[in-house]
Amino acid sequence: MRNILIIGAGRSAISLIQYLIDRAEAEELFITIGDISVQNAQKFNEKHPNVRGIVLDVFNQSQRKSAISNSDLVISMLPARFHIEVAKDCIEFGKHLVTASYVSDQMQLLNKKAKAKGLVFMNEIGLDPGIDHMSAMQVIDRIRDNGGKMLLFESFTGGLIAPENDNNLWHYKFTWNPRNVVLAGQGGAAEFIQEGTYKYIPYHRLFRRTEFLEIEGYGKFEAYANRNSLKYRKVYGLEDILTLYRGTIRRVGFSKAWNMFVQLGMTDDSYTIPNSENLSYRDFINLFLPYSPTDSVELKLRHSLKIDQDDLMWGKLLELDIFNTEKKIGIKDASPAKALQKILMDKWTLAEDDKDMIVMYHKFGYELNGEKKQIDSNMVIKGSDQTHTAMAKTVGLPVAIASLKILNGEITTPGVQLPIAKEVYEPILKELESFGIIFNENQVPYLGYNPDNVEG
Amino acid sequence: MRNILIIGAGRSAISLIQYLIDRAEAEELFITIGDISVQNAQKFNEKHPNVRGIVLDVFNQSQRKSAISNSDLVISMLPARFHIEVAKDCIEFGKHLVTASYVSDQMQLLNKKAKAKGLVFMNEIGLDPGIDHMSAMQVIDRIRDNGGKMLLFESFTGGLIAPENDNNLWHYKFTWNPRNVVLAGQGGAAEFIQEGTYKYIPYHRLFRRTEFLEIEGYGKFEAYANRNSLKYRKVYGLEDILTLYRGTIRRVGFSKAWNMFVQLGMTDDSYTIPNSENLSYRDFINLFLPYSPTDSVELKLRHSLKIDQDDLMWGKLLELDIFNTEKKIGIKDASPAKALQKILMDKWTLAEDDKDMIVMYHKFGYELNGEKKQIDSNMVIKGSDQTHTAMAKTVGLPVAIASLKILNGEITTPGVQLPIAKEVYEPILKELESFGIIFNENQVPYLGYNPDNVEG
Repeated sequence: MRNILIIGAGRSAISLIQYLIDRAEAEELFITIGDISVQNAQKFNEKHPNVRGIVLDVFNQSQRKSAISNSDLVISMLPARFHIEVAKDCIEFGKHLVTASYVSDQMQLLNKKAKAKGLVFMNEIGLDPGIDHMSAMQVIDRIRDNGGKMLLFESFTGGLIAPENDNNLWHYKFTWNPRNVVLAGQGGAAEFIQEGTYKYIPYHRLFRRTEFLEIEGYGKFEAYANRNSLKYRKVYGLEDILTLYRGTIRRVGFSKAWNMFVQLGMTDDSYTIPNSENLSYRDFINLFLPYSPTDSVELKLRHSLKIDQDDLMWGKLLELDIFNTEKKIGIKDASPAKALQKILMDKWTLAEDDKDMIVMYHKFGYELNGEKKQIDSNMVIKGSDQTHTAMAKTVGLPVAIASLKILNGEITTPGVQLPIAKEVYEPILKELESFGIIFNENQVPYLGYNPDNVEG
Repeated sequence: MRNILIIGAGRSAISLIQYLIDRAEAEELFITIGDISVQNAQKFNEKHPNVRGIVLDVFNQSQRKSAISNSDLVISMLPARFHIEVAKDCIEFGKHLVTASYVSDQMQLLNKKAKAKGLVFMNEIGLDPGIDHMSAMQVIDRIRDNGGKMLLFESFTGGLIAPENDNNLWHYKFTWNPRNVVLAGQGGAAEFIQEGTYKYIPYHRLFRRTEFLEIEGYGKFEAYANRNSLKYRKVYGLEDILTLYRGTIRRVGFSKAWNMFVQLGMTDDSYTIPNSENLSYRDFINLFLPYSPTDSVELKLRHSLKIDQDDLMWGKLLELDIFNTEKKIGIKDASPAKALQKILMDKWTLAEDDKDMIVMYHKFGYELNGEKKQIDSNMVIKGSDQTHTAMAKTVGLPVAIASLKILNGEITTPGVQLPIAKEVYEPILKELESFGIIFNENQVPYLGYNPDNVEG
């Protein structure tokens, strides 16, 4: 019997846990689920005799060390900032570790020790980061193996509402943490390279410089730039690539409309609003518009953002009921971002039967035998229900598959790892296909930014 | 003989030192000027036998303590963050202290000790903060003394180029620290109150919500909001005021043009640009525009900012020569803000004979006997030359006058002070008039934001 300890049994762990339970007997797994909430920890207890839920506070050292020392492999589904204590214990007790989070500097420092003890510390093996790494490296390695030279890599991911439940003007609902959506893009200019030139977009322009994408059967999407595309240069061995761009996918029109909130300053999370709990939605909007003894909030907003009378943007605002005088923000010491989130959650929260959808799109531009070529690759997966969401599947399944393969000695390279090696991504991507996580590849004409080699 | 120690003999200390030298004999002053630069410290040595320059490194404890213990009053003209060590020594050795800087939290903590020892720690007695406090409180106190109730207070200050040397399209030159001008308004939304309603302007809209001002003989000005107007509520005893707004004065058209740089992201100081030293001005501009193999930087910028062919904005950009392919940024690891500052300094640096000009404008709205009234008050002063600039006079003279009045026992209230008490501002404002720092007051129709008491 092999003991797997899963720390953190929130929404993103559901598909992961189910995968391991389904294989518990055949693979001789005993699964311990540790969560700070008793309810979360024990909700799988009835499902299988090889599953046990325990209350685990990751800051309780004896609880944590005892649970980790009794396992063969640890999966941490905690928020990224909590991994490090778990990782240190894994070094101490000689346990493998799997997370879906970005490798922190602290985590990277454990590389030598993990290697010395022959431990696999696999990180960034969820959706984004995770499936993006694997599906990109698979194509990049193939292009290189064939003698091609990478010219362009663009990669886009988005968590959206499934088309059948897409029934608002924004074509968007919160399928994941709403706060992250409201704050998306903040904290500095987006940085990327186009045709060898560095490019920067400040936050207040981010949602006005989007790129369009189209996927057969799913229609058009748009993407705005992620903050830091450049760190992928080194990870993917693309130090000399001319174009490198990563972005977040939304339905067409979302970004232009979202930009209204950015322009007004409603996504700011750096200060609190006095008396925020008693402000109506209308009062809240009015904070960002000049005072007038006579003009309406509506007209001031139209004028401030130059919204024509027949502009669809206006319908999007009305749909959110932002001019309502009765509905209250109801949150004490709210920042603008928190107040805006409250307004959006009224309308963008998933209904009982709503399904989510994950969309990923890669563009690979390369030169082979003096010819410029391009491969586009995309993946779309919908949630099965509110539990087995597309997000839970795409985050949890790669973690689960990798964990089992580490236990079974199929993934063996020790140290702090990302899933960018063939031994890792090939079998995992293969297995993900059986869960409907399938990439469609198309050879397309080279659509780089400089097909004619013009200087500029 | 009374010993005055001046720490920091930079540009802003010139008029201050001259004022004290001119009175050294009659007032029996011995003036010690401490500066980290020998040259700065000793440049006044020849001017008067009662002046001595010493090298003083404020971080050298024995140097600092020795100089302070030998003085009767200390004037610190150092950057605000360096005052605290000086202030602690003043407590230890029982010396009065004068600074032109905002009271820091650390400084405020010394209030009790200063009071206990009967020491005057006078702060915020330069231009802004300083003359603004004094000239505002003088009118506010008068309105209250007459039974009036304050409704509105708006206050604006700007450092500009004198009209006779105003020879560029921006009507602006650097008369003070250029870096502060480039970074102005950053660090959070501007916050103020209009008619009892809180209002917020995010940085990227700051330069598009300006207010116009007019001063007879000097023409029109505009002002953009300062970050935090609300701290003046408590200082001025205006807790219930309906409208409180502070801003920075520029010539009309500056803000709209400056906004181009803000929009493009060129004022960002949070990251560095690779290879910045070798970028041409044109390359720098191109960092903030989408890549195109064919379109010019000019057209991309026009399109990005929607600048019409005949828009004056365009002339302002051309005047700065931002599309030059030869001129290099020439600064290693420059942030966008630093690179932009370099470009601007080519054109906005004062010429030998250029004079600066300080403009201050207050609006006081109040109710008296059921009637709404308004007083507007303004002050304009020009520099005499490149040494005795308007900035040096307006910052240094109030410091100098206050220092002498403290020594002479005319200002006596002990503790950490601002110049908002009548005993302080009346005699100082009176004396400033003899230096041409004169406020012109006009009773005007009440121009508040809500003359008709409409709700909104």
